[in-house]
Amino acid sequence: MTITRDWLDHAEGSVLVEFGRTRVLCAASVTEGVPRWRKGSGLGWVTAEYAMLPRATHTRGDRESVKGRIGGRTHEISRLIGRSLRAAIDLGALGENSVAIDCDVLQADGGTRTAAITGAYVALADAVSWLGERKKLARPKAVVQSVAAVSVGVVDGQPRLDLAYEEDVRAGTDMNVVCTGEGSFVEVQGTAENGVFDRGTLDALLDLAVGGCAELTRIQTAALQRAGVR
Amino acid sequence: MTITRDWLDHAEGSVLVEFGRTRVLCAASVTEGVPRWRKGSGLGWVTAEYAMLPRATHTRGDRESVKGRIGGRTHEISRLIGRSLRAAIDLGALGENSVAIDCDVLQADGGTRTAAITGAYVALADAVSWLGERKKLARPKAVVQSVAAVSVGVVDGQPRLDLAYEEDVRAGTDMNVVCTGEGSFVEVQGTAENGVFDRGTLDALLDLAVGGCAELTRIQTAALQRAGVR
Amino acid sequence: MTITRDWLDHAEGSVLVEFGRTRVLCAASVTEGVPRWRKGSGLGWVTAEYAMLPRATHTRGDRESVKGRIGGRTHEISRLIGRSLRAAIDLGALGENSVAIDCDVLQADGGTRTAAITGAYVALADAVSWLGERKKLARPKAVVQSVAAVSVGVVDGQPRLDLAYEEDVRAGTDMNVVCTGEGSFVEVQGTAENGVFDRGTLDALLDLAVGGCAELTRIQTAALQRAGVR
Amino acid sequence: MTITRDWLDHAEGSVLVEFGRTRVLCAASVTEGVPRWRKGSGLGWVTAEYAMLPRATHTRGDRESVKGRIGGRTHEISRLIGRSLRAAIDLGALGENSVAIDCDVLQADGGTRTAAITGAYVALADAVSWLGERKKLARPKAVVQSVAAVSVGVVDGQPRLDLAYEEDVRAGTDMNVVCTGEGSFVEVQGTAENGVFDRGTLDALLDLAVGGCAELTRIQTAALQRAGVR
Amino acid sequence: MTITRDWLDHAEGSVLVEFGRTRVLCAASVTEGVPRWRKGSGLGWVTAEYAMLPRATHTRGDRESVKGRIGGRTHEISRLIGRSLRAAIDLGALGENSVAIDCDVLQADGGTRTAAITGAYVALADAVSWLGERKKLARPKAVVQSVAAVSVGVVDGQPRLDLAYEEDVRAGTDMNVVCTGEGSFVEVQGTAENGVFDRGTLDALLDLAVGGCAELTRIQTAALQRAGVR
Amino acid sequence: MTITRDWLDHAEGSVLVEFGRTRVLCAASVTEGVPRWRKGSGLGWVTAEYAMLPRATHTRGDRESVKGRIGGRTHEISRLIGRSLRAAIDLGALGENSVAIDCDVLQADGGTRTAAITGAYVALADAVSWLGERKKLARPKAVVQSVAAVSVGVVDGQPRLDLAYEEDVRAGTDMNVVCTGEGSFVEVQGTAENGVFDRGTLDALLDLAVGGCAELTRIQTAALQRAGVR
Repeated sequence: MTITRDWLDHAEGSVLVEFGRTRVLCAASVTEGVPRWRKGSGLGWVTAEYAMLPRATHTRGDRESVKGRIGGRTHEISRLIGRSLRAAIDLGALGENSVAIDCDVLQADGGTRTAAITGAYVALADAVSWLGERKKLARPKAVVQSVAAVSVGVVDGQPRLDLAYEEDVRAGTDMNVVCTGEGSFVEVQGTAENGVFDRGTLDALLDLAVGGCAELTRIQTAALQRAGVR
Repeated sequence: MTITRDWLDHAEGSVLVEFGRTRVLCAASVTEGVPRWRKGSGLGWVTAEYAMLPRATHTRGDRESVKGRIGGRTHEISRLIGRSLRAAIDLGALGENSVAIDCDVLQADGGTRTAAITGAYVALADAVSWLGERKKLARPKAVVQSVAAVSVGVVDGQPRLDLAYEEDVRAGTDMNVVCTGEGSFVEVQGTAENGVFDRGTLDALLDLAVGGCAELTRIQTAALQRAGVR
Repeated sequence: MTITRDWLDHAEGSVLVEFGRTRVLCAASVTEGVPRWRKGSGLGWVTAEYAMLPRATHTRGDRESVKGRIGGRTHEISRLIGRSLRAAIDLGALGENSVAIDCDVLQADGGTRTAAITGAYVALADAVSWLGERKKLARPKAVVQSVAAVSVGVVDGQPRLDLAYEEDVRAGTDMNVVCTGEGSFVEVQGTAENGVFDRGTLDALLDLAVGGCAELTRIQTAALQRAGVR
Repeated sequence: MTITRDWLDHAEGSVLVEFGRTRVLCAASVTEGVPRWRKGSGLGWVTAEYAMLPRATHTRGDRESVKGRIGGRTHEISRLIGRSLRAAIDLGALGENSVAIDCDVLQADGGTRTAAITGAYVALADAVSWLGERKKLARPKAVVQSVAAVSVGVVDGQPRLDLAYEEDVRAGTDMNVVCTGEGSFVEVQGTAENGVFDRGTLDALLDLAVGGCAELTRIQTAALQRAGVR
Repeated sequence: MTITRDWLDHAEGSVLVEFGRTRVLCAASVTEGVPRWRKGSGLGWVTAEYAMLPRATHTRGDRESVKGRIGGRTHEISRLIGRSLRAAIDLGALGENSVAIDCDVLQADGGTRTAAITGAYVALADAVSWLGERKKLARPKAVVQSVAAVSVGVVDGQPRLDLAYEEDVRAGTDMNVVCTGEGSFVEVQGTAENGVFDRGTLDALLDLAVGGCAELTRIQTAALQRAGVR
Repeated sequence: MTITRDWLDHAEGSVLVEFGRTRVLCAASVTEGVPRWRKGSGLGWVTAEYAMLPRATHTRGDRESVKGRIGGRTHEISRLIGRSLRAAIDLGALGENSVAIDCDVLQADGGTRTAAITGAYVALADAVSWLGERKKLARPKAVVQSVAAVSVGVVDGQPRLDLAYEEDVRAGTDMNVVCTGEGSFVEVQGTAENGVFDRGTLDALLDLAVGGCAELTRIQTAALQRAGVR
């Protein structure tokens, strides 16, 4: 996995995350103020939107803007990313600021949602730094922990980390796990469309996931230590 | 939890499931044939749609039909129910028949998605029996295992089974678990909007969930053994 | 026809009305304030929305939320119910409060719109009582008269009251009549898709309708005299 | 009321109907074949769509195409016009042909739906003649009777025929009546938003309406006897 | 081309413009105030919406309101008309007033967008006069120049002015030109779906267009000198 | 301007075009067959869709998929790109194949539509080569000429080539010109929101545009001569 910061010129934080052939552009946009239902609470807000370019995949898909509606999968992933990133932030320290994270999949080869979360955390951290440099945070240390995500699955009976597209299709069981840098869980989503899984398999997948997230945490940390180009 | 079968007169399978103040009407509708992309495969198909009546909740919500679009939460739950129920079925034995499961929440007091899955399984089993009686299955035994679901969570530091609405709001961690009657996992979805959870908590929640699903399996079995009223 | 009050726990007024196999859940939701165009007028507002669950009917219908648009029939019936219920209310006495009535057809066997109006009146009366008990009405007696509705039609040349689904389909002429408890007309909607009708038939249908509404008025009155369960 | 036939060059039947300041353009478009659900029945089909130009009224209204959805009033009127016109036609004689009637209100001053029905009948009759001349009817005499419509209402306690906009707003009771040329009823729609009405008032309004429709029938007949300009 | 002013009774400015078989109804509606993003600027705003009635063309088209979305062609033409008309107006002199121009094509036979612009200018001029008579302009002379539009094209190798529908279809090159009354250019839109064009052809088409616009300017001026009928 | 071919792994042709800070990803997707209205014609089809990522611009824009509708500007540009690219192709030689071009603006700094056309031509040429290598063209030489596009404008009274964002905003006159490699015109779109332009200015702008396109043609040719990386 490679993480390129400041891939965009306008966004307060932006990352191009590449993972195998998967490439996701994550942009964090800051706006002052929060949605109406949150005004006066003193708390900030973080949201995410996930989308795929039509030709990110092997065959071209129709644009959701042309269809006039967002599909269930898109909704589900956008909500997952938003919940995961909010776990990284002390919303009180953020103050009444909003950060919108856009994760656009330029090319897909499996693991797009976990790559998106992992890259989006870095873009979010940069956007919070941007706020801090401009003295717009309510308190310092608005980022309380890092988050990273991996997908794990059972392919041909073997637990496997980070499935590419072909393996993804063949996997009987598939699990997305979001961890903090300290190894706690933020989200665990396991599904078994083609079969079911027992507790032993679940345990093996979780072990694999925690290890994978720890490796990604190292890559995130290294990326954030490099001086930004802006 | 009480399960009332044949609550509707027209549907091939229908159940009113009541769980605390939560009431969900599950209707299984059979149609011959499958969606276009599946034609000629010899396999059947099972889908689900979840929705809430406007005044199921404490304050009235807008209808999604009036808003002209389905929200992310609705999409997410519909997809969860559909995946869970397909785990109960041998789609080859079902033959090229489709079963659409509608789960409409008449009143909500926490746990609507897990109540929906648990009730919908019974409606689905009745619909498959209906197909069997009419010799429309490709093979007998299209239902290969039962599925049931519970929600578990951590409230005030304690793992708890089956949260009602007030507890749901206070819970730091919330997990929906779908198990088969044999105790294998079909879906595990844990989220931690207000905090994170460690492996020990995850294990405690899973233990609790497996126990809860086993109890629901007994209630499902008893309900299916009662002679239908039709 | 049976009317069960307080079928829901959260709504300010709610009724399950059953009429043959037809079952409609009517919920009246109170909110303080009125739509923007009515602010400062001192007058309240009453609206209604009608919908059918997908498997209320013999064959499953698509959800309007999934289609992304509300059909003409749904619109037409929602408007009819809203106009009918407003005739029951002194909007000045109601004060700047809004009551939204949701009529959701759980099962349909003819006469859903008239059952909805008849049940919704009882839910509305309960919601107005709820406002009265909390001293939120501008003046007492906000309910000025009851409303009830029947459908009448000509089947095989004979005027008939309260058509079930099969008769509904065969009817040459079909009329929905909404009356007050005193026997005045609020709405008269006669249509003749398969044939036309003369003045004599119209008179006979109106006579039948007035008698039917009087009977429903007695059932509504009896239901409202029973002590509520809340 | 004036009826100008052949106001359009392309439509198989078209009429500009003017009634006071109200002006409605009615276009009847013929297509071979019927909707899918009707194929093979041997029966034709007639539909109608009603719409208002944005500046037909005193203040400009938003376009429904811009809003992305059709309002309840538009739906209700379109359905009324369609049902009324189908009463004029022997759908078996029409054969498997479809006629779509578009009623676009260019300027509105009360009575737009009744003007639309009255004008649309003439456009429909011309479109059926067009089919007859081309030997495309299953049988001759596909038009079995004429239809015309008036609005009647009670203004200041007096039954009144053909309300203009100002009267329309003040009317306590408002009724739209569609009659055949022989004086039978096709549709009777009475509503009493501001008050209720008794049987005596209903009878007086119906008498007035039948008389008004008879006058319109004469105007329709005269218009159809004039040689077309095409 | 004929221009009939005051074709509508309610609009502040309205024109029926006829050009061959093409008939476009242009209505200019004045509202006090401007869109939110322009408030406090002291500047007015002019917008336009273009639409076609379903049976304006040889075969009936579906309504965009029924389809629930506006097509690309409609959007493109609406924007062209809006830009063209804003060139006629000193928005500072207009003050914080808005003028919405609706151009509805009642019948189409080529050149609908250019007929719309040419007619809409006259309706706009009348609407500005209406504002002036009521002392609602920020400064006099809010109309700074007239605008008119023609379409030109190459048919069978020959530059041609004002294509009717049949020629339009056969044209290899098609250009819409909007000029001021003084002969300056406001918009030049040339397209070559079936072939490309060289500089010489472009020059010939522009010469033709400037001459055509000058002729239309004379017709507009004559129309505006006639006393209005209101 | 730099053109990077084969930026995507799955698409039959793909280009990342960079022009100042503007970056547009152009993907050409081939499918066998043509839209229904074109079947049996022997002719192929080329379409284009243009879109902007939410944070391509200085401030984040809402996604059109979330808004549920495509804006007028997007429609207008998509149609312009489609028409321009079709001018490059002999649709008979293409045979009944379709090429869909997606132009997604990753970052915007003026000139996105002209950069999109210029890059999309190269992606289209690669997609046609892909078809040729697989013997799927009806005839060779389906690409008959190259197309490239520039924007020109008048800033502070001076004709200027290739406006960046700040100049774009200040420009009184703005023109997009699409030329073939031989210097003929495919599209000429000049607009003068803030002022009008005379024939002399138009001539100067066209001269500038033809020169700019010639330079882009050289860059396109050089890019296509480099061996592809796939």
